[in-house]
Amino acid sequence: MKSPERIILEHGSGGALSRQLTEEMIYPILQNEAYPELADATAFEIRGRTFITTDTYVVDPPFFPGGDIGTLGVFGTCNDLAVCGARARFLSLGLVLEEGFPTADLRRALESVRLACEQSGVLVLSGDTKVVPTGKGGGIFLNTTGIGEALGDHYLSVRNIQSGDAVLVSGPVGNHGLAILAAREGLKIGASLRSDCAPLFPLCEALYGLGRELRFMRDATRGGAAAVLNEAVSHSEEFGLEVDETAFPISGIVAAASDLLGLNPLEIANEGVMIAVVAQRASDEALSLLRSFEAGREACQVGIVSDGYPGRVILETAVGGRRILDLPRGLLLPRIC
Amino acid sequence: MKSPERIILEHGSGGALSRQLTEEMIYPILQNEAYPELADATAFEIRGRTFITTDTYVVDPPFFPGGDIGTLGVFGTCNDLAVCGARARFLSLGLVLEEGFPTADLRRALESVRLACEQSGVLVLSGDTKVVPTGKGGGIFLNTTGIGEALGDHYLSVRNIQSGDAVLVSGPVGNHGLAILAAREGLKIGASLRSDCAPLFPLCEALYGLGRELRFMRDATRGGAAAVLNEAVSHSEEFGLEVDETAFPISGIVAAASDLLGLNPLEIANEGVMIAVVAQRASDEALSLLRSFEAGREACQVGIVSDGYPGRVILETAVGGRRILDLPRGLLLPRIC
Repeated sequence: MKSPERIILEHGSGGALSRQLTEEMIYPILQNEAYPELADATAFEIRGRTFITTDTYVVDPPFFPGGDIGTLGVFGTCNDLAVCGARARFLSLGLVLEEGFPTADLRRALESVRLACEQSGVLVLSGDTKVVPTGKGGGIFLNTTGIGEALGDHYLSVRNIQSGDAVLVSGPVGNHGLAILAAREGLKIGASLRSDCAPLFPLCEALYGLGRELRFMRDATRGGAAAVLNEAVSHSEEFGLEVDETAFPISGIVAAASDLLGLNPLEIANEGVMIAVVAQRASDEALSLLRSFEAGREACQVGIVSDGYPGRVILETAVGGRRILDLPRGLLLPRIC
Repeated sequence: MKSPERIILEHGSGGALSRQLTEEMIYPILQNEAYPELADATAFEIRGRTFITTDTYVVDPPFFPGGDIGTLGVFGTCNDLAVCGARARFLSLGLVLEEGFPTADLRRALESVRLACEQSGVLVLSGDTKVVPTGKGGGIFLNTTGIGEALGDHYLSVRNIQSGDAVLVSGPVGNHGLAILAAREGLKIGASLRSDCAPLFPLCEALYGLGRELRFMRDATRGGAAAVLNEAVSHSEEFGLEVDETAFPISGIVAAASDLLGLNPLEIANEGVMIAVVAQRASDEALSLLRSFEAGREACQVGIVSDGYPGRVILETAVGGRRILDLPRGLLLPRIC
């Protein structure tokens, strides 16, 4: 039985062609010692407190400078565990393929999943593949659900945040969203834009070593830094954030492209940048730790937690004004991750 | 901010409208004591050997007689754990919504998730919502990843199967696939067809009590009974199955509709039927156990594991012939689950 060059509906039938796709392509790429056979469910052992997170990736285009839907699907979900103080151990992988999707592209995405898993020290334990008719899907959608083990007893939460704490950003913002936009629209400026898609676990593990002086971390994905900064304080009746717009590391190309397109880099999605809130006295140590990693080389403090403006993020702007930095409204760009 | 009556792209932006959808609709419906706040990942504790499984549901239409994508998403994934000898405990829920999908339908599907979770004793711990533009999705897709705890040390696998074992089916086949087909195509015959979508855990738990005499269980979803029977023996060089076509419980309406449409009920998807392989000496006890449940009322033995025809399923047909029952080829129907 020859394998078609494009996905056809029968690949999702549960019959002979489904089995061929699974047994001859998907499983051989993802198989590992913890996933010894194809079954309805796979057993694993994990000690102590465990974390779970889920994310579906619908990024368009699925391949872009700096990564693809496979790397994103692994790093993105592992990052969600990392910022909660957990080491990713296992993943499930759910594919929704659109009829007509090239099987070579599926193989390429799966190879990226495998490499990103190796780099992250995680194992795929369960998979599922569905096929939808042309016009009912977006080429490839990929869900990963991640299982991780807690690094320790310290539970990170916005509830730990205290007035006077320092607000840090781990690296330059805006690269992922603009790289996707440029790749999708074929913008000339795109040649020098690359997604920052990267594992944040090493940075998060280092900060976790600060103990209770680390309050909260979150990766700044959809909605960008603006969304995370707001999430950090929006439920508080006690404090808000004061943030310095000029303090954020932003590359020249991102600044230029954002300016040209009328976008705010603080609202643009990232895939390798996190916001951390730490006790002010731990800020220098936290920045040293972050800067010891390539992905954190440009880490810096961008603001403080303040008693003024409870529940709000106040931005000191480049031109010297002060304004509320709200949750992004409208939509920059669909299918960013 | 008024909530739109239909999903718009901004619901997936990560900004204000994303947050409104999550905080005002999705989370209030699914919230539970183990999911106390919206964070990137949620902690849980589970003892001993743990199982994971994942499934994406793309069923069309999402609401059908006997169930909907919400019930299917919970029962389907819990059933995958159950047939491996595990009790489902936790679920993640990943939604991919198409721009224009009615928010009332989303609410209805989520209410079904909640009810099915209550019925199954599982808790949602993590969620994610993406929105794709019109023409890039299928209304609603739903991924659930399930975490379950092992019922005991006995590991169920096709490798346990021995020559002479009995092959049981837990209930009448063909209802789910035909109900979906009838609902999608508006077939008149559909009025009396209902999906069999139901939790199999109680039946699986009862059979698990048989100990080593229970060899293997699998729910007969995509590809129907034919796919599961083949999976049970396709890798064996020692034995095959001999199965009696007339022994399968099939309702009058399924028999009539299959005949009319030229479909083989053994190849049609089910969502509340499993195939179990048990030692022949345990067959009567297993059938008694299954029949003590409503979903297993019509359970019966349909075949035996035999030394002849290794790797093959041999069907004794209604007209007295014998033929190979292969994995289904071609495609009955896309988006069946």
